[in-house]
Amino acid sequence: MNNQSKDVMLVKISPNRDPEWVSAFKEVLPDLEIRVWPFVGDPKEINLALLWDPPDELFSTVGGLDVIFSVGAGVDHLIECSEIPTDVPIVRMIDVDLTAGMVEYILYHVLRIHRNMDSYFEQNLKRQWAVLPYKPANELCVGIMGVGELGSAVASSLHTLGYQVQGWSRTPKSLPGIQSLFGISQLSSFLAETNILVILLPLTNATTGIISLDRLMELPLGSYVINAGRGLLIVEDDLLLALELGHISGAALDVFGNEPLPVTHKFWTNEKVFVTPHIASLTNPATAVASIAKNIKRHKEGATMKGLIDINDYR
Amino acid sequence: MNNQSKDVMLVKISPNRDPEWVSAFKEVLPDLEIRVWPFVGDPKEINLALLWDPPDELFSTVGGLDVIFSVGAGVDHLIECSEIPTDVPIVRMIDVDLTAGMVEYILYHVLRIHRNMDSYFEQNLKRQWAVLPYKPANELCVGIMGVGELGSAVASSLHTLGYQVQGWSRTPKSLPGIQSLFGISQLSSFLAETNILVILLPLTNATTGIISLDRLMELPLGSYVINAGRGLLIVEDDLLLALELGHISGAALDVFGNEPLPVTHKFWTNEKVFVTPHIASLTNPATAVASIAKNIKRHKEGATMKGLIDINDYR
Repeated sequence: MNNQSKDVMLVKISPNRDPEWVSAFKEVLPDLEIRVWPFVGDPKEINLALLWDPPDELFSTVGGLDVIFSVGAGVDHLIECSEIPTDVPIVRMIDVDLTAGMVEYILYHVLRIHRNMDSYFEQNLKRQWAVLPYKPANELCVGIMGVGELGSAVASSLHTLGYQVQGWSRTPKSLPGIQSLFGISQLSSFLAETNILVILLPLTNATTGIISLDRLMELPLGSYVINAGRGLLIVEDDLLLALELGHISGAALDVFGNEPLPVTHKFWTNEKVFVTPHIASLTNPATAVASIAKNIKRHKEGATMKGLIDINDYR
Repeated sequence: MNNQSKDVMLVKISPNRDPEWVSAFKEVLPDLEIRVWPFVGDPKEINLALLWDPPDELFSTVGGLDVIFSVGAGVDHLIECSEIPTDVPIVRMIDVDLTAGMVEYILYHVLRIHRNMDSYFEQNLKRQWAVLPYKPANELCVGIMGVGELGSAVASSLHTLGYQVQGWSRTPKSLPGIQSLFGISQLSSFLAETNILVILLPLTNATTGIISLDRLMELPLGSYVINAGRGLLIVEDDLLLALELGHISGAALDVFGNEPLPVTHKFWTNEKVFVTPHIASLTNPATAVASIAKNIKRHKEGATMKGLIDINDYR
């Protein structure tokens, strides 16, 4: 990156949200020029990009990027673009509010499931006063697949609340006070001990479809699934079957193979499934722009950017 | 308490739950003889009692108690008995699982409200995919009335999750990192800054009806109320009015002036009210009996029991 020339950032997120990003950049990085896709001006001047789900033609229009920033924690929406340059560093979003939002979403669902809150809601509708027993948190095991930036924060919060927590990831991870298994060879033992499965893996070739019917049947009878990673981590028809078989008692799904989830999809009408529209955690422009600013500075100084991904993990 | 004579404990909780208490006592205190109300045997032999909502005749039948233990965190169900002896120490329940259960219940409701989960549930029913904005936790203020054993644990959990938290109590309390107001003179300023009001006060002469229409109107427009203390802390008709006026956006109520909540009560059918049947936290016999055992030991040794109440606070 040339320190002398002016930085120009191309932003492509969504028409709804682009304006608040532009304001946040103006506030934090007033010298950075922002252009909002598809209004690229002279594409040669653009050296940075902040993207969500870019169209392939974006990369044929704008060459010469120094860094590509993902607006979310995942980068699969970038990697799957056939035109994405292979020699430009790609940085995923690591941001305090993004992590906090994910912790909130997962805690909400774990507490809802643990404390029978859906049953109480139904009892309320029927004006029914009946106490439902519950186990203490330390008799419930929450298993978290993917214990990186988000998963480890979720694990730590649940652990503090007294839940049994275990992690699983592709490569070994060390989490204070929490058992963490790794690799396909340990996945069966991980699932066998899990009452509430929380999926926060990145979507890669190795993880696509990792939760199939066989894997769901390895969970104890009556388990729950929470997916806030990516839809395609789960074989969606297999989850529907496991719910129908009664082996899985319920699912909270924030991500889907097709988004927005098509109105005809069975998830919408399955009473055991709570669908949310990819809102587990929304990137907060105010704090995220500050993270991006720090990464731009690191890049100019030749330091490693926080959240820099290895493209080989995805291909 | 005579160290030589055998201890005999009278238990009166509920027919559903008495058996698990008896088992828990057998496990932890095998030498303690348990009698379950109304089967008192020779009442003169009984020197201890573990009670929930006892009938007045219990105290005329069983004299000579050394200690009365409450099965719950509150003791109002004891104090309101006209026949309760005034010279016998009364001990409220302080137990790790009772505290944990309350933290879970309050966190669930705060997260549900903060993250628009009821709206997402309705969108799900309508197969509607729409992102609803939310504020970061540090822009929401949760105000906790009653920051004793339970309230301070709730405050600390919410603080860890990033919420603004403030406390209010009758007498000054010091909570690490959390502002705590006290006394009626500071109640208005406390309410004016509170977006989600959590009520965990004990029910005493001074707190009965403390949350009236005037107080509810001191909360900012669009606030929420969570009551897991006692029903009569709130003037129930005033809450219904504040909800109808739209000043209060919703309420989660676990406790009521009349329990079970009568089927004709308007709380059941008010769409802004989530009724639960006094389950915010259920005392877990396994851990609670261990707490009682420690208090019996303290009492025999002349030490102060944990949870010993001052009856003057209630009268």
